[in-house]
Amino acid sequence: MAPFVHSQALHAATLRALAERGVSLDEIAELARFLQASYIPGLSLEECRHHVERVLEKREVQNAILTGVELDKLAERQVLSQPLQGIIESDESLYGIDEILALSILNIYGSIGYTNYGYIDKVKHGILQHLNDKNTGQVHTFLDDLVAAVAAAAASRIAHHHRARQEAAYPDANPPAWDE
Amino acid sequence: MAPFVHSQALHAATLRALAERGVSLDEIAELARFLQASYIPGLSLEECRHHVERVLEKREVQNAILTGVELDKLAERQVLSQPLQGIIESDESLYGIDEILALSILNIYGSIGYTNYGYIDKVKHGILQHLNDKNTGQVHTFLDDLVAAVAAAAASRIAHHHRARQEAAYPDANPPAWDE
Amino acid sequence: MAPFVHSQALHAATLRALAERGVSLDEIAELARFLQASYIPGLSLEECRHHVERVLEKREVQNAILTGVELDKLAERQVLSQPLQGIIESDESLYGIDEILALSILNIYGSIGYTNYGYIDKVKHGILQHLNDKNTGQVHTFLDDLVAAVAAAAASRIAHHHRARQEAAYPDANPPAWDE
Amino acid sequence: MAPFVHSQALHAATLRALAERGVSLDEIAELARFLQASYIPGLSLEECRHHVERVLEKREVQNAILTGVELDKLAERQVLSQPLQGIIESDESLYGIDEILALSILNIYGSIGYTNYGYIDKVKHGILQHLNDKNTGQVHTFLDDLVAAVAAAAASRIAHHHRARQEAAYPDANPPAWDE
Repeated sequence: MAPFVHSQALHAATLRALAERGVSLDEIAELARFLQASYIPGLSLEECRHHVERVLEKREVQNAILTGVELDKLAERQVLSQPLQGIIESDESLYGIDEILALSILNIYGSIGYTNYGYIDKVKHGILQHLNDKNTGQVHTFLDDLVAAVAAAAASRIAHHHRARQEAAYPDANPPAWDE
Repeated sequence: MAPFVHSQALHAATLRALAERGVSLDEIAELARFLQASYIPGLSLEECRHHVERVLEKREVQNAILTGVELDKLAERQVLSQPLQGIIESDESLYGIDEILALSILNIYGSIGYTNYGYIDKVKHGILQHLNDKNTGQVHTFLDDLVAAVAAAAASRIAHHHRARQEAAYPDANPPAWDE
Repeated sequence: MAPFVHSQALHAATLRALAERGVSLDEIAELARFLQASYIPGLSLEECRHHVERVLEKREVQNAILTGVELDKLAERQVLSQPLQGIIESDESLYGIDEILALSILNIYGSIGYTNYGYIDKVKHGILQHLNDKNTGQVHTFLDDLVAAVAAAAASRIAHHHRARQEAAYPDANPPAWDE
Repeated sequence: MAPFVHSQALHAATLRALAERGVSLDEIAELARFLQASYIPGLSLEECRHHVERVLEKREVQNAILTGVELDKLAERQVLSQPLQGIIESDESLYGIDEILALSILNIYGSIGYTNYGYIDKVKHGILQHLNDKNTGQVHTFLDDLVAAVAAAAASRIAHHHRARQEAAYPDANPPAWDE
């Protein structure tokens, strides 16, 4: 046996974890569309979903999701040690490790995703509102931040690809004096 | 002469830079109050300003502000090299170094400030709306992010201090089993 | 009961977690001294330990340590889901969430701790060598990075305090022209 | 004219900035090889240079390098405001914005690069020793950290690609039970 976990196993486990915890890729894509729609007229859910899928292929993103969802599930089953059990179970506002894992997802696509992440996490758009409902008996302390971060990372990826298309449309825009 | 810049010189230069660029401490305090008012009834502008002042005493915060404002001013005077001059002057959306400096301010107060920063930077409350007005002839590519970060850092500081007061009011809340 | 975990409970649990996992505060202090000794002649272990203790009073540091040690212990007891169990148990080199938690500790004391953290984590000085011994049956995937980060954070704290003493010794060093 | 700087202009300016400041891509590649050689026997300078070139194609990396080098050059020409001029000119140990820009490069390739960055920045291998020589009259406060970060990012990229080759060599390593 190889002395490491194969990439496909990691990827498959990540998609499974999201599905098991009730988050569809279309719901994440909808968050990305919400963030980018005003900048890119006609942005489709399909295009957003494509970018969400690419983000979920990154090993760093997979590691953050698998770790955060595991902690959510363990807290839900009440098997963590105290006081960590109480902190994660109650989504304690000063905890911050959930935001730290979210940041590790955002960082892969550069710093332009920070504001989108913060905004979407605050206004609780779409699936994020459901994940923040404390009356379901489920614990999503990490998942809501991770989903918001994947959506914001996808939004950054969309913005970069949109720019590439704009550059192709303005071929003369590269002033010779800068690029001599 | 000492082989380093004195703390007081750094602090004074930071306060001067904010004032010169048209940002008052009360305007930053108002942003912090906007972020925390719904969590802490009766939160006064004075208390928020107190926390903003403490944030501005941190060397890392001073270094970020002095560096960012310097780049804004140099871009305004058109003295940077191309293509950096064009990027900063136009507040180019994919630049991201402004958000990186903002993050260095937020980090000092932990990760709980990330969402507040992102939110306030997006909704452009108060002074941030003025700093984002591209018709003034001024360049505030860095300053708007730095001001949002100082306000979010102050909000984190307020949240921590509010918790300390709550803890004093619930002296029995520390279950002996956890703290044996 | 208060709807949150008291600060003292968090602090006590952190100190207990380090002790239970075989790390003494003096061993962390020794790492901090190793990092700063060449810059500050005569730096004592006692002074280093004082700064390590202050670092461990920070809530963000406590949250990172409690979360990382919990994951180490769960991996040791083989109760995590696969593939996360295999990844953490084998200290898989591309995992990276251990470094992310370490960074959340470093950030509190500014960016000057990054290089000290990286250096000490690489050369495996003192207790870090023991924590990296894969033949003990114990899992310290998170703990070695957390301990290195606490030591590097303490080294940053020591550097800041050393500067404050230097400034007091050079009272004229603040050129009036800068601080007008 | 396009309302943005073209990618090629940014890329070309980055390569020009490194060359002008006396850093060759082979010197950065040598740093990456130094970091990875013990893990990957037979790792060639050519392969390392290939990965360094890929890292330098990332917009976030280009923005960090152009911003940092600009500040170095402005400090060298003594045109920054005080006290920032004195801080950058003297490579003041508590400044930290240079490490912040370095981190923005590292983050793109995940957290596994943090320790390599810290290590190489501390031991001053290869070109980094020259960049830290304070007797040249040149200011490289930012450049040494940026070069170390590009090398560490390239080392992360090499590690990821090496893993992909290992996975291809162990096709059965993906246990069905994990990937059902």
